[in-house]
Amino acid sequence: MHRVHNFSAGPATLPIEALQKAQSELLDYHGKGASIMEMSHRGAEYTEVNSQAVTRFRRLLGVGEEFEVLFLQGGASSQFMMVPYNYLRENETADYLNTGSWSKKAIKEARLFGNVNIGYSSEDKNFASVPGDGELGLTPDAKYVHFTSNNTIFGTEYKKEPETNGVPLVCDASSNFLSRPVDMSKYGIIYAGAQKNLGPAGVTVVIIRKDFLEKAHTDKIPTMLKYQTHAEKLFNTPPSFAVYMVNLVMEWLEEKGGIAAMDKINEEKAELLYGEIDKDEFYKGTVEPKSRSRMNVTFRLGSEDLEKKFISEAANNGMIGLKGHRSVGGVRASIYNACSLDSVKTLVSFMDEFRKSNG
Amino acid sequence: MHRVHNFSAGPATLPIEALQKAQSELLDYHGKGASIMEMSHRGAEYTEVNSQAVTRFRRLLGVGEEFEVLFLQGGASSQFMMVPYNYLRENETADYLNTGSWSKKAIKEARLFGNVNIGYSSEDKNFASVPGDGELGLTPDAKYVHFTSNNTIFGTEYKKEPETNGVPLVCDASSNFLSRPVDMSKYGIIYAGAQKNLGPAGVTVVIIRKDFLEKAHTDKIPTMLKYQTHAEKLFNTPPSFAVYMVNLVMEWLEEKGGIAAMDKINEEKAELLYGEIDKDEFYKGTVEPKSRSRMNVTFRLGSEDLEKKFISEAANNGMIGLKGHRSVGGVRASIYNACSLDSVKTLVSFMDEFRKSNG
Repeated sequence: MHRVHNFSAGPATLPIEALQKAQSELLDYHGKGASIMEMSHRGAEYTEVNSQAVTRFRRLLGVGEEFEVLFLQGGASSQFMMVPYNYLRENETADYLNTGSWSKKAIKEARLFGNVNIGYSSEDKNFASVPGDGELGLTPDAKYVHFTSNNTIFGTEYKKEPETNGVPLVCDASSNFLSRPVDMSKYGIIYAGAQKNLGPAGVTVVIIRKDFLEKAHTDKIPTMLKYQTHAEKLFNTPPSFAVYMVNLVMEWLEEKGGIAAMDKINEEKAELLYGEIDKDEFYKGTVEPKSRSRMNVTFRLGSEDLEKKFISEAANNGMIGLKGHRSVGGVRASIYNACSLDSVKTLVSFMDEFRKSNG
Repeated sequence: MHRVHNFSAGPATLPIEALQKAQSELLDYHGKGASIMEMSHRGAEYTEVNSQAVTRFRRLLGVGEEFEVLFLQGGASSQFMMVPYNYLRENETADYLNTGSWSKKAIKEARLFGNVNIGYSSEDKNFASVPGDGELGLTPDAKYVHFTSNNTIFGTEYKKEPETNGVPLVCDASSNFLSRPVDMSKYGIIYAGAQKNLGPAGVTVVIIRKDFLEKAHTDKIPTMLKYQTHAEKLFNTPPSFAVYMVNLVMEWLEEKGGIAAMDKINEEKAELLYGEIDKDEFYKGTVEPKSRSRMNVTFRLGSEDLEKKFISEAANNGMIGLKGHRSVGGVRASIYNACSLDSVKTLVSFMDEFRKSNG
């Protein structure tokens, strides 16, 4: 079987164990004579898949039934509007921390519904940082504080939750969810498109605190856009195969030791890669060291031609997905949970060789 | 390999050829060393999948670039609100034809946005019919006429488009799309959740006429809910594996001879099944014969106990998914495009045997 080292920013590499299990039962799920994707979402088989997945998220995060776990559709882009649709009205304010393209998109949608206070922005320095303690300008009675815990495009990441004096956090955790511990007591909602750390594209995991859910507006909200609709029951047909894959990835994650184990190995992977970048001036990290992401490692080379050569030679050596986002250029290695230490070591060796040949 | 005869209403049976192809390349797509679900949605591989799928829908429907083909998320339930969000405002009217549970849900969402005129309703006779010519009460300047072309729960289906005197049709075709010819010149939008006739759950195919798209409202609509957003470009990460599966199913459909061939075989399947039902009074069809669905064949037996026995013995004989929708009871055989003639013949033989043993 031919498998490359996949550094794609998302849809991203998945654990081979999860893919192999899916492959083995793709035509005949548990001897039932049909694929899980051909089965009713109200039937025993899918009900079990859904229930297992919910339980695994709660167990991994160390929370109980005080949090609802929802599997919605439409990506983080849909959460950008669902959050203010449920929580923000004309005379109300939410704080948004602007740390990149995805934050900006969330802010744009929130402004359709109510007041948005920008509690921090690194836009004037090309989003090279996330805020540290004492850098926030927050609204005392804000409905929530929205932040993007990892910025896929620019390669920055919060090391811990921003301090909000008790205002609930709403977090787009699409690109670092379950890669490090989080303090769930601070969150009203944490959401993540699955296609980076959780599974394939097509399902968004939305974890919402029940007492925060109770504070949602209910007037004139289309049924599918109310969190309450989905918390009450399985309202409509879910993206069942995507949820099934997420469940397999969560099974793998638990077998690997959960978030604590991932935290350790992600630190090791990032140190290896940033260590290689920091050896000399051949590779140049693009963000402030204190804000560096452990998930998306962004760097430049001496020229765009050299970057092209790097990406092309890497591909020839079985390393794909290294091109930086079209809006910023350069090189980006996305090293999510399912990207192995072996893949990172292979990349670091290649970087070392490339420096020698082109330095 | 163990495979049952699957009569599930959706998620429903898929062509074995599509599942086998997906299985064979699940870990290594076209020799690229990664699954299609691990690849960037902006990369060459997925771009080709998306483009193939769009082309196949246009070819199957006999239309050109005057129709956009969009692969959205959130099911038909999300289209129920997206349609009026884009096309209906307080002082405007849309006509809705009420032929079942899904029509009612669409009507509920539309009323959040503007005036809804009910142009037909069979609710007073438990949705046992769809309208014939001359049974509609439409609004001359309606923005659109919305109808549900096949009613999965009640087992009714339109044989042809309702006559609207030029007002564009908007159609929820989730449960009979591509099973019979349609007159595309009459549609503004035709949409379908994939999980019945097109592929797995998790993608909604939305086909929208460009000149109708141009008439959409644009004010204060969240970005993800504007059709224009998705028509302009691939805005956010699509449910790529689901689209890939839909493309494989469309490939199968074209190889089988397209809509014309399906129309013929679906007629044959339905005739077999309704013929068995109509033999005597042992099985009783639940809807008016002129409104009978070729996709969801609903019938009752003499008692609920006998229905339970029927469903249970059928399952023991390798026929699953026959239980009627929880809101109506009875038996329902869903015989979409991918349900083979062989499966229908097996069911008809079983029904005959069951009548003999229990008549």
